[in-house]
Amino acid sequence: MQEFEATEHQHVRYNPLKDEWILVSPHRCKRPWSGQTEQAPEEQPPDPNNPLRAGAVRSSGQRNPNYTSTYVFPNDFPALLERVPEPPTPDHPLFQASQAKGTCRVMCFHPDSAMTIPLMSVTEILAVIDEWINQLQELGRRYTWVQIFENKGAVMGCSNPHPHCQIWASSFLPNEPRVKDRCQKEFYTKYGKPLLVDYLDQEIKKKERIVLQNSEWVALVPYWAAWPYETMLLPINNRPQRMSDLSDSQKMALAEIMKQLCTKYDNLFNCSFPYSMGWHGAPTGPSKKPGDAPHWLFHGIYLPPLLRSATVKKFMVGYEMLAQPQRDLTPEQAADKLRECDHLVHYKNK
Amino acid sequence: MQEFEATEHQHVRYNPLKDEWILVSPHRCKRPWSGQTEQAPEEQPPDPNNPLRAGAVRSSGQRNPNYTSTYVFPNDFPALLERVPEPPTPDHPLFQASQAKGTCRVMCFHPDSAMTIPLMSVTEILAVIDEWINQLQELGRRYTWVQIFENKGAVMGCSNPHPHCQIWASSFLPNEPRVKDRCQKEFYTKYGKPLLVDYLDQEIKKKERIVLQNSEWVALVPYWAAWPYETMLLPINNRPQRMSDLSDSQKMALAEIMKQLCTKYDNLFNCSFPYSMGWHGAPTGPSKKPGDAPHWLFHGIYLPPLLRSATVKKFMVGYEMLAQPQRDLTPEQAADKLRECDHLVHYKNK
Ligand SMILES: O=P(O)(O)O[C@H]1O[C@H](CO)[C@@H](O)[C@H](O)[C@H]1O
Ligand SMILES: O=P(O)(O)O[C@H]1O[C@H](CO)[C@@H](O)[C@H](O)[C@H]1O
Repeated sequence: MQEFEATEHQHVRYNPLKDEWILVSPHRCKRPWSGQTEQAPEEQPPDPNNPLRAGAVRSSGQRNPNYTSTYVFPNDFPALLERVPEPPTPDHPLFQASQAKGTCRVMCFHPDSAMTIPLMSVTEILAVIDEWINQLQELGRRYTWVQIFENKGAVMGCSNPHPHCQIWASSFLPNEPRVKDRCQKEFYTKYGKPLLVDYLDQEIKKKERIVLQNSEWVALVPYWAAWPYETMLLPINNRPQRMSDLSDSQKMALAEIMKQLCTKYDNLFNCSFPYSMGWHGAPTGPSKKPGDAPHWLFHGIYLPPLLRSATVKKFMVGYEMLAQPQRDLTPEQAADKLRECDHLVHYKNK
Repeated sequence: MQEFEATEHQHVRYNPLKDEWILVSPHRCKRPWSGQTEQAPEEQPPDPNNPLRAGAVRSSGQRNPNYTSTYVFPNDFPALLERVPEPPTPDHPLFQASQAKGTCRVMCFHPDSAMTIPLMSVTEILAVIDEWINQLQELGRRYTWVQIFENKGAVMGCSNPHPHCQIWASSFLPNEPRVKDRCQKEFYTKYGKPLLVDYLDQEIKKKERIVLQNSEWVALVPYWAAWPYETMLLPINNRPQRMSDLSDSQKMALAEIMKQLCTKYDNLFNCSFPYSMGWHGAPTGPSKKPGDAPHWLFHGIYLPPLLRSATVKKFMVGYEMLAQPQRDLTPEQAADKLRECDHLVHYKNK
C-alpha cells in the first residue's frame, strides 16, 4: 500500500485539551457543493441608528453615552441573572438541576458601527484588551468563570454588526473549561509541564501549523482543529494563567497579532470573516489567586465556520453531532492558506 | 425571595449520558430577534432530475435502478474509505494520529423526491427500519460503530431534498458513543439498572416531558435537552441494546411513532421541519454478540435547530461553543408545545 500522506489519507487526531478525537478526511474536499449557501457577510452601509453606536438609544430605552473608546453595559436580555431562587435538591441522580447565578454584559469595541478589529488601530485594540482585563478582574472576584466571547457575522447568530463582544460571568464552571481544566491538570501531574507550554514548544520547532508569530505570541491552527480555519493564540513567555497576568509588552503584542490575524481572515475570502472567538484561562472566584493554576496557559480561540468561500460554510451536523467532528482539509493545509494571505493590508484598503 | 419556577428562573441541568451540563434561561425567550433568519424550508416543486430519484443518473455517472422502496448505494464522496495507509506511530502525546477505516453509504427512503417520513405510509417507514437493521447487521460485523443519521433541510447542510439518510461505519468508536458507553456503564455498575431504563421509568411516572407514547415506544423531550425541540425515542419493553434486537412489534410501533412525531414537528411551524437525527445503540464489531451490553438501551435522537418559527433557529455559537449549551425555553415547555400539535393530520393534508 502507499505511504501515509496526511493530505490524502483519512485519519483521526486526538485533542488532548478536550479528550476528544477529530476525523480528518482531506480527500473529501474534492466533492462538489450544491447545498445551502450563506449570504455573503457584507456590506450594508452602517445603520446610522445602530443601537450600539455612541449616543444611540437602545431597545430598553437607555441611551448610550457619547463614548470614544470601549463601552460596557449590562445585556438587556441576559441569559444569567445575579439573583434567582435555588432549584430544589435533586431527588434522583438522573434529574439533577442546580443553581446558576451570573451576569451578562455587552462590550462595544469602538464608537463607529463600520469598524471591525482588523480595521481598528493597534492602540484601539489595546484599549479593548485593557477593558477585557478590567472586566475579568472585577467579575472574577465574584464569579467562578468569566467567558469573554465575540460572535461575529449573521451566520454566527450575531444580530448586530456593530463591533462588540459579550461577557457572561457565572457561579458555575461551564463544561468546556471544566474539561480543559481536568485535561491540563492530568498532563501537568504526569509530565510536570503545562500541556500548552509543551505544545507550543513543539509547534515552534515543527513550524507546520504556525500562521503568525511575534515576540510574545503565536497564532496557529491547532493539530486537532475541528473547524476549517480554527486558530489558537498562545503566549510565548511568562506562562500567564489568566488574561490578568499579561505584561504590558504581551498586551501590546497581542493587539498587534489580533489585528494581523483578523486581516488574514478577511483577506482569505475577501469578506468580513465570521467567527466566534473567546478567551480561556484558569478559573476565577473569591478563593483564586494569581499563580495558583500552574497547569493552565491563557489562550485565545477563533472558531470560524467558512470552508470554501464567503458563502459556503462547514456544517457541523448529523455525523458531527451524533458521532464526531469531521474536517475536509488538514490543519496544515489551513495554516498554509492563512500564511499566504496578506496580514498587513486589508482587502478594503487595497 | 420567590419560590423556584423552572419556567421563570435560570438553572443548569445535568446530562447523565454525556456528563455535561446545560444552561436553561427561559426568561430569555422574551428578547426580540433581529438577527439572521433562514429561508423557510420550503417548497420548491421536486426536481424531476433529482440524482437520488429512482432511475436518475448521479454525478458519478452511475444510474440508480428503478427502485420502488429503499435504495442503498456507496457515497460518491465518502469521508471514510475502507483501505487507507496507517499514520506513523505518534512520537509525542500531544500529536496523536490514529488509523480510521470505514465506509459511507447513502440510503434513499422512497423513490419519490417529494416524500418525507411524515408523508410516507407506516408500511413504507417499516421498510426503512428493516433496511437500517440490514445495514447495521452487515456493517456491524466488520465495524466498531455504524452511525445511521439523517440531515434534513438546507439549514442542516443537506444538499438534496430527496428523502434519504447516510450510514457511516468506522473502525473507531467516535466521541459521542464513547462517552455514552462510559456513562451508561458507570451508572449500571453503581445502580445495577441501565441508565435509560431507569430514566424512562421515571419519565413515564412524571409525564411532564412525554410527547407521544404507544405500546412499545415513548417520544420525549429529555430533561437535559440542549436544542429547543430535541426529542428522544425510547423503547418501553425488552431492553433492546442495538437496533437489530427489535421485535416485529417494536419495529411496527417504531414506524408509527416516527410518522406521528415527524407530523407533529412539521405542524409546529407549518414547514418541513429540519433536523439531524440518528440512532445510538451498543457498539458493534467482530467480537460483539447480542446481549453483551446490558448497560445500553437502544434509542433515537432528533436534533432540530428551529427555535421561534420556520425561519428563526437557535444559534449554538460563542457561549455554547466556548463554555456550555444554553437553551431559551424549558424542556417541559417544548414538550407542551409539541403535545399540542396534531400528530395524525399533516398540515399539507389539511
Ligand atoms: O454528506 P453531505 O450530506 O453532503 O454533508 C453533510 O453531512 C455531513 C455529515 O454530517 C457533514 O460532514 C457535512 O458538513 C454536511 O454538509
Ligand atoms: O446574545 P445574542 O448575541 O443575541 O445571541 C447569540 O449569542 C448567544 C451566546 O453565544 C447565543 O446563545 C444565541 O443563540 C445567539 O443568537
